[in-house]
Amino acid sequence: MDILFKNITAVTMDPEAPILRNVDLGITGRKISYIEPSISQLSAAPSVATSTTGGINLETTPQKAAVPLTAARIIDGTNKVLMPGLYNCHTHAAMTLLRGYANDRALEDWLFNHIFPAERKLTLELVYTGTLLAIAEMISSGTIAFSDMYFHADEIARAAHDAGVLANVCNAVIAFDKDGYDFFKDNVYTQSQTILEKYHNKGDGRIKLEASIHGVYTSFAPAWKQVTDYAAKHDLGIHVHLSETKTEQDNCIATYNMTPAQVFSSHGVFDLPCIAAHGVWVTDDDISILAEKGVSVAHNPLSNLKLASGLAPVGKMIKCGVNVAIGTDGMASNNSHDMFEEIKMASLLQKYAASDPTAAPAHEVLAMATTGGAKGQGRDKESGMLKLGYDADMLMIDFDNPRQSACYDPALNLAYSTTGRDVDMTICRGKVLYEKGEYKTIDIEKLLYETRQAMKEFTS
Amino acid sequence: MDILFKNITAVTMDPEAPILRNVDLGITGRKISYIEPSISQLSAAPSVATSTTGGINLETTPQKAAVPLTAARIIDGTNKVLMPGLYNCHTHAAMTLLRGYANDRALEDWLFNHIFPAERKLTLELVYTGTLLAIAEMISSGTIAFSDMYFHADEIARAAHDAGVLANVCNAVIAFDKDGYDFFKDNVYTQSQTILEKYHNKGDGRIKLEASIHGVYTSFAPAWKQVTDYAAKHDLGIHVHLSETKTEQDNCIATYNMTPAQVFSSHGVFDLPCIAAHGVWVTDDDISILAEKGVSVAHNPLSNLKLASGLAPVGKMIKCGVNVAIGTDGMASNNSHDMFEEIKMASLLQKYAASDPTAAPAHEVLAMATTGGAKGQGRDKESGMLKLGYDADMLMIDFDNPRQSACYDPALNLAYSTTGRDVDMTICRGKVLYEKGEYKTIDIEKLLYETRQAMKEFTS
Repeated sequence: MDILFKNITAVTMDPEAPILRNVDLGITGRKISYIEPSISQLSAAPSVATSTTGGINLETTPQKAAVPLTAARIIDGTNKVLMPGLYNCHTHAAMTLLRGYANDRALEDWLFNHIFPAERKLTLELVYTGTLLAIAEMISSGTIAFSDMYFHADEIARAAHDAGVLANVCNAVIAFDKDGYDFFKDNVYTQSQTILEKYHNKGDGRIKLEASIHGVYTSFAPAWKQVTDYAAKHDLGIHVHLSETKTEQDNCIATYNMTPAQVFSSHGVFDLPCIAAHGVWVTDDDISILAEKGVSVAHNPLSNLKLASGLAPVGKMIKCGVNVAIGTDGMASNNSHDMFEEIKMASLLQKYAASDPTAAPAHEVLAMATTGGAKGQGRDKESGMLKLGYDADMLMIDFDNPRQSACYDPALNLAYSTTGRDVDMTICRGKVLYEKGEYKTIDIEKLLYETRQAMKEFTS
Repeated sequence: MDILFKNITAVTMDPEAPILRNVDLGITGRKISYIEPSISQLSAAPSVATSTTGGINLETTPQKAAVPLTAARIIDGTNKVLMPGLYNCHTHAAMTLLRGYANDRALEDWLFNHIFPAERKLTLELVYTGTLLAIAEMISSGTIAFSDMYFHADEIARAAHDAGVLANVCNAVIAFDKDGYDFFKDNVYTQSQTILEKYHNKGDGRIKLEASIHGVYTSFAPAWKQVTDYAAKHDLGIHVHLSETKTEQDNCIATYNMTPAQVFSSHGVFDLPCIAAHGVWVTDDDISILAEKGVSVAHNPLSNLKLASGLAPVGKMIKCGVNVAIGTDGMASNNSHDMFEEIKMASLLQKYAASDPTAAPAHEVLAMATTGGAKGQGRDKESGMLKLGYDADMLMIDFDNPRQSACYDPALNLAYSTTGRDVDMTICRGKVLYEKGEYKTIDIEKLLYETRQAMKEFTS
């Protein structure tokens, strides 16, 4: 055994055993290899009997006879909580270099006068740096996987590969006319080919290429066919923007006499595994299509509020059987990769929208960010739960402090009282990526220096 | 000088000089005694010239000739940001012992079957413990002042006094009939008398007593007159709940043919300095009354969503001249005292409600939590800004990490990228209350132990 958490509380997200108290959880290689009621020597030590926590309500679990457990590293889990690592299913990671860039402006002004000109300064190196910066923030707040849509996707794949996280990456086709289409097509397919050769399902399979249509409103039918053919040929998933704004929805209906979901569905886009980001303005019929086609919706509650796009009806989607995951969207429009913020607001906004405080309870929104995300990335057979034989993808939080006290149900505290800043340790595929301010796979000083240099580019 | 921050960035909330970069800021006793462009020896050191921050965009401020500055403690402010300490203008601090208690339930079930029975177990000692727990969470996340409404308010005053924070405390009159009124009246006035004698404006004036009417819907006219007479007699402010739910609003109109704001206004409640919590369902006419009477509204965006009460029109209130502050409400209905969550959502929800991404910009929501709160507590002549001669009430955040990188405008990052967990240091009246996990005025081990003991009471 490589790592053994002794006497810990696990919020597993496994419906068969959602909360385990006082368990020992072991990791061997990339897998969870042991979960049993604690027989810990630690748990018999006086430090626990006289524990001063105001955190977890320590119920006693019947204990088995002591068997010596050994591991290369043993972590005392008293008053600590494990949960599955988080999936951020929609972001544009490289834009972290533009966190808060020209915010609080009208959309057109912000995009055309600030964001687009800044993005034209993005080099391959800057895309790598910005993505690594995003990953540093993600792993410091418990996120172990992200689904990204951005240009220079091969650099994004490289950053995810180097940092040890899981990533589904894509470069979206944007094409307003044939010339634009040819330009994008060449770039997208050149980069995609690089990713296919170097990263896609290579080695331990942490990185996956996806095909992508940016949105119904930024391309046209020949592009959609090319993307779906390419995805089908290489057995890839697809990542799209869908019904983010009312303008998009209205214009699509005016142009095609169909909603964006109906357009994509009729063009075969949803016949492949698909993540559709946003879904703010989907109709009841759209929701039926998404459910029937098995499309995963990436809900971005904070970005949708901040850009004044609206509030996606994810409560209704879940009732209708749609898999809902959560994303943060890019840092120019949020401005944090803290998935715990999204989890809390995903719940509170559904309660508000439904005028019902029982809507979107804690376990439902935690599931969006774990099992829902793993399903959206096609990893749900191996990740998203703390379960024997599953990948050791998890985060650990110390509950022995005022922020987590009192605690009557650790899942409730995770959903409503936690931020990413509470995460003490993030583990992906059995490897510790982050622990108490230390980044194990990233040279953080170098990264922050390069970020500062990049800022000079954007402000010059 | 007692404390000197060298070469720091200050988001002052002073309209005349909102953001100061590369300044030295000194504290003497309880006051800010020095703010000048940095002449720091530290700022000349190579560590700054080669700083690796991706955080603050370090613009150079013209520097004066070096004059040796001395202080008992000198803090290198490179890549760090100061802002005024936060005001939480509506909470029920003692309920922190019930954080997450029986959540995700319908309001009636939650209140009558869980919260009220639990509250009946609250002793004087438990109110003190719960309040101290809340204060520990507050100071660890940058809050230096709170306005509280709860029974045993004398114990709340004692906890605030012991912990070194600012507090306006009150025990609300709740009286559904004359017997109830007599019971509450006796308790309220006995406790208020204790607070008047021991704490109110005593010593350094950190603690203030307020009078309080719980709400229009939980008492009647004779009680309102008694409360306002008592407040006038002792020169106190008043704290009320106002138009929190649609039911409250509709029932009030049905009973009195007036809105709650009209009822309170016509009974003279608003002729005294007043904090009105929530204001979710106020009408345009109510907003005019609040503006005209100088009532401060304590906006509780997360509690209002979580209990499915609605979304207060604070954007319109501000346009009409109402002073808006922010509160977290109690921990059974939020479940965090993290004011940065409220700040961010106060902005995002107004953008959403107005379908306008320029609504409620960063400086406006930061002002709610600082200058707006100080005004609500009657402390705006001495606190709420980083300004020469003002009280040294402030928090410090390290921006040299991925969560705050990139940073083009520190106020934007404070509003949209920060959580309370990012706070490194909290200072109230010149005294460090919290620094990097250490609580200077609270025995945290004892407090967490007592919290755990209390939890046993509530679950037995």
